[in-house]
Amino acid sequence: MTLDRDASDFVIIDSTARAMADAARAAILPYFRARGLVQDNKLADGFDPVTEADRAAEKAMRAVLERHRPDDAVLGEEFGASSGTSGLTWVLDPIDGTRGFVSGTPTWGVLIAVSDAAGPFYGLIDQPYIGERFVGSGARAELTGPAGVAEIVTRTTSDLAEAVVFTTFPEVGTPAEAAAFRAVAERAKLTRYGMDCYAYALVAAGQVDLVIEAGLQAYDIQAPIALIEAAGGVVTNWEGEPAHEGGRAIAAANPELHAKALAVLRDALG
Amino acid sequence: MTLDRDASDFVIIDSTARAMADAARAAILPYFRARGLVQDNKLADGFDPVTEADRAAEKAMRAVLERHRPDDAVLGEEFGASSGTSGLTWVLDPIDGTRGFVSGTPTWGVLIAVSDAAGPFYGLIDQPYIGERFVGSGARAELTGPAGVAEIVTRTTSDLAEAVVFTTFPEVGTPAEAAAFRAVAERAKLTRYGMDCYAYALVAAGQVDLVIEAGLQAYDIQAPIALIEAAGGVVTNWEGEPAHEGGRAIAAANPELHAKALAVLRDALG
Repeated sequence: MTLDRDASDFVIIDSTARAMADAARAAILPYFRARGLVQDNKLADGFDPVTEADRAAEKAMRAVLERHRPDDAVLGEEFGASSGTSGLTWVLDPIDGTRGFVSGTPTWGVLIAVSDAAGPFYGLIDQPYIGERFVGSGARAELTGPAGVAEIVTRTTSDLAEAVVFTTFPEVGTPAEAAAFRAVAERAKLTRYGMDCYAYALVAAGQVDLVIEAGLQAYDIQAPIALIEAAGGVVTNWEGEPAHEGGRAIAAANPELHAKALAVLRDALG
Repeated sequence: MTLDRDASDFVIIDSTARAMADAARAAILPYFRARGLVQDNKLADGFDPVTEADRAAEKAMRAVLERHRPDDAVLGEEFGASSGTSGLTWVLDPIDGTRGFVSGTPTWGVLIAVSDAAGPFYGLIDQPYIGERFVGSGARAELTGPAGVAEIVTRTTSDLAEAVVFTTFPEVGTPAEAAAFRAVAERAKLTRYGMDCYAYALVAAGQVDLVIEAGLQAYDIQAPIALIEAAGGVVTNWEGEPAHEGGRAIAAANPELHAKALAVLRDALG
């Protein structure tokens, strides 16, 4: 599939992904900001709410896939992995940023990636409440939102001292991971928190320069990787290697800034 | 003016405020997420960007006021105070959350409050990009947004251990202020960052329970005060007194939760 993928394949993948995102929007929005959300805790000792919306959205996306792409594999946050024969895997996070979701902030998103053996090559981040959809593949990324449709490209910021850096939680991860993040943040112009997957969309859209996080799952990061790389950015793990299996990730607006921030991270980790 | 204010006064104040917010939206949106924003630094040693949008929006709002309410006083973030004869003051922050604005996050807002000698009695928070407007006065608050128009009320969470608490920056203010915030946050269910004025709107909309901040100006807090109180919440300073002059503020979903969080803040400050 990888070698003979052509333009018509991309059109079908893109239209399928957008239909899935439409289905997820319809499934999720009735639950957003509703009172008495049904939740349970995935981690007994943590706070990781899973809403009915999360499950309903993944079911809705899988139904679209079963109809149009029955031979593709699926890896979803809620319902795990199902195998396929095409060589393509759809990687789904129906609601990335569930803490933001249950707080009413429009910073959560529906994440859809399509991967082959080399990693994700198509990424979509959808924010249903705002009505924004960020899509990237190959060398083109675009945003459809309240202001219409526009191609998006990452920023050219090459100096860390001019960079705007995001992470979701000040704690980042382990104390060593938090210290490494702070080493970058202290050299940056501005540090902001709390945006969940929306921060990655802002890198793709040329609004911010860096997102640095740890403790990620594959379904958290594959859509951001494909989207940001299509818009001109670079996403790796903290060793500079592919990040699509999850763990620690650094997303940068361009290769020069990525190299500088990565060096600070690695120095700080020792 | 205070004593003989009646329903028709509220209608005129509300329609004037909404016309001002419409004018601010039109002034600001062309600048949001535009490349090469013109900025200057208000504080030589800080990072407090003021955009052309900030100035254009306050000018647009003042023009509406001069046309319809020429006898009212105005206090604006950008152009200061102008006196009036009516006993009413319009308190304006054209873009609250300029750091969020320049980062492309839809968490900034246009703040409009109307005050008399007793403090703010009308509050409006507008998020132009999302197209959301939170308005409150007296005992009624409403949200107009992507999902339509709905009355909003605050949450009934009375236990601090069940509360969701927001502040914009983990640093909060001074080290003592940060420690006091953390004393509350450690007792809460979930702490989130980065929402600027949008966090206050979420208290009014019944999505979150507490917002605790320091170092505020009058124009930062007057619209949240009137909005949240109209929706059923309580906003004071950290001494439990009126917060409309700025400084340290605590906004709570209801009086019981306010009292509990305030006690923790005061104990922590010593």
